[in-house]
Amino acid sequence: MPKTPASEQDFLHLIDAHFPTAHPHMRLGRGDDCAILTMDGPETVMTTDLFLEDVHFRRSYFSAADIGHKALAVNISDIAGMGCRPEGFSLGLIIPHSASPALEASFWDGLFSGMSALAEEHGIPLTGGDLSKGPCLGFSVTIWGAPGPTGRILTRETCAPGDAIFISGGIGLARAGLLALEADPGDAPARYPDAVAAHLRPRPRVAEGLALAGLPGVTALMDLSDGLARDLPRLTGPQRGARLALAPQHLHRDVTAYCQREGLSPEEFAILGGEDYALLGAVAPEQVPALTQAVPDATIIGTVTESPGLFLGQTPFGHAGFDHFSTSS
Amino acid sequence: MPKTPASEQDFLHLIDAHFPTAHPHMRLGRGDDCAILTMDGPETVMTTDLFLEDVHFRRSYFSAADIGHKALAVNISDIAGMGCRPEGFSLGLIIPHSASPALEASFWDGLFSGMSALAEEHGIPLTGGDLSKGPCLGFSVTIWGAPGPTGRILTRETCAPGDAIFISGGIGLARAGLLALEADPGDAPARYPDAVAAHLRPRPRVAEGLALAGLPGVTALMDLSDGLARDLPRLTGPQRGARLALAPQHLHRDVTAYCQREGLSPEEFAILGGEDYALLGAVAPEQVPALTQAVPDATIIGTVTESPGLFLGQTPFGHAGFDHFSTSS
Repeated sequence: MPKTPASEQDFLHLIDAHFPTAHPHMRLGRGDDCAILTMDGPETVMTTDLFLEDVHFRRSYFSAADIGHKALAVNISDIAGMGCRPEGFSLGLIIPHSASPALEASFWDGLFSGMSALAEEHGIPLTGGDLSKGPCLGFSVTIWGAPGPTGRILTRETCAPGDAIFISGGIGLARAGLLALEADPGDAPARYPDAVAAHLRPRPRVAEGLALAGLPGVTALMDLSDGLARDLPRLTGPQRGARLALAPQHLHRDVTAYCQREGLSPEEFAILGGEDYALLGAVAPEQVPALTQAVPDATIIGTVTESPGLFLGQTPFGHAGFDHFSTSS
Repeated sequence: MPKTPASEQDFLHLIDAHFPTAHPHMRLGRGDDCAILTMDGPETVMTTDLFLEDVHFRRSYFSAADIGHKALAVNISDIAGMGCRPEGFSLGLIIPHSASPALEASFWDGLFSGMSALAEEHGIPLTGGDLSKGPCLGFSVTIWGAPGPTGRILTRETCAPGDAIFISGGIGLARAGLLALEADPGDAPARYPDAVAAHLRPRPRVAEGLALAGLPGVTALMDLSDGLARDLPRLTGPQRGARLALAPQHLHRDVTAYCQREGLSPEEFAILGGEDYALLGAVAPEQVPALTQAVPDATIIGTVTESPGLFLGQTPFGHAGFDHFSTSS
């Protein structure tokens, strides 16, 4: 049985066992005051996300590997939302005080395995960070990346009225998984397997984002983390709006089944649902065929409008979306 | 009276009021999935530090501005420890749940004022980050930087036996401030003003670090954050050791006064004391005059030895130093 890590040295050894200490873009890695990195290309994209116990995840139904995976995945998704690829990340890890329920060696091993598997899939090194005891298990990941071969980086608020709005990935799916897990963690995985997987193990869409950045017709892109109702105004900018034309085939069967069982409108639910880490973008209408050729799962769900406001067909949509900040427990 | 920030929007507005939204190295700042940055030069140094309430600071004797200052200062110090200058930073800010004692508008204003004043002093933008409610007030700062005109970056474990060990900044001073504040926060500032200031408001030594990187005779550098006893082996590397020759004039009067009152050995205390954020380095012996010309406050305190081990004069020094990790409350 491996020993449960207790000291800072124990954790550093465990991290070294899971994450390579060398990478072509890292002249000096973990262990000094700073890492020494070479960035790929003239521009670097950079973001930081917090991932805190009982705010962003629960230990009761996330496996240790799920936690490690998702702490990094939500950050990689921000890089994908710029049409870029990740280059490296650093980690601030908050380890619960010993007063918290003891975390066994197998927990930490699972956590770092989940994180390192995703890091390896994307070829990115853990360049450094910090460890501290604290009141809850928590992660602060900072990640950086570079654009693809064209050098193009996709941003928000750069689309025009008449552009088609597309999505690559589920809408409302992760929200159905979250609510089903909160209500009955024993039943949810069997009843809504894809929704539960979308919440526990989101897949960052780096390949799709890079393909989108290579299409001149794509005019704006972001990752869908707070639901369409909140994120569409961020995509179009405050001067523009969006008209959605959601059809039943745009909704995953788990979303439809969840809403049917709970007596909810599936369209409304999908528009409000957050944490999908899908890609949400806009494309010039004549470039839609090129879009669906480059990213086969990209689906047109609406149009950018001249004036602010979100419409579902002809009906104004009045609800706010998912707010990580105010829904913290 | 400004309104106490409650929503994520309130905090984002407050942050925009304190931190500029434009910077020559930031093509796109806060508000998108990522910032878009240009890094200065072929190599970038990068680090992340956590700064958590009741682990790294207490609200009872830190002013709001002290907290904002120190959360950033300890990170800038890591950049200085590489002989580099900071270029930008991102912030993961954990805001206590509403169940925590209410934090007023004036608290947040003070906190961001303290942080932005230091950022402005160093000319660095806040490029983005994340906000979340959580169980305590906490900061995760990721900072990056670039070397000075020579392109030289200073690291650890690169010095040779016989090199002189130098310090720029106090040793044990911040530890005296911490212990005095913990024992009697009402009395400490008047009795040990410089020690208290060293704990609450450490000054990162960027100018000194850059000057040191410009001296070919300087063979290793780091920032002294965990005390000489812990940090010297990191400077020399595990194959080498250090022999210290501490004289009374190496110790600040607040350290001497604190130790006298508490019945402690000032030398031992200074060697164990952490959080000084001084610069600790090594220099080829014949380059000592050039060192003290370039960094007038640099003081020789010992010599790198052939074999591992820390000696105070001829006596082995057996104690461990300050451990952020195990001393968390």
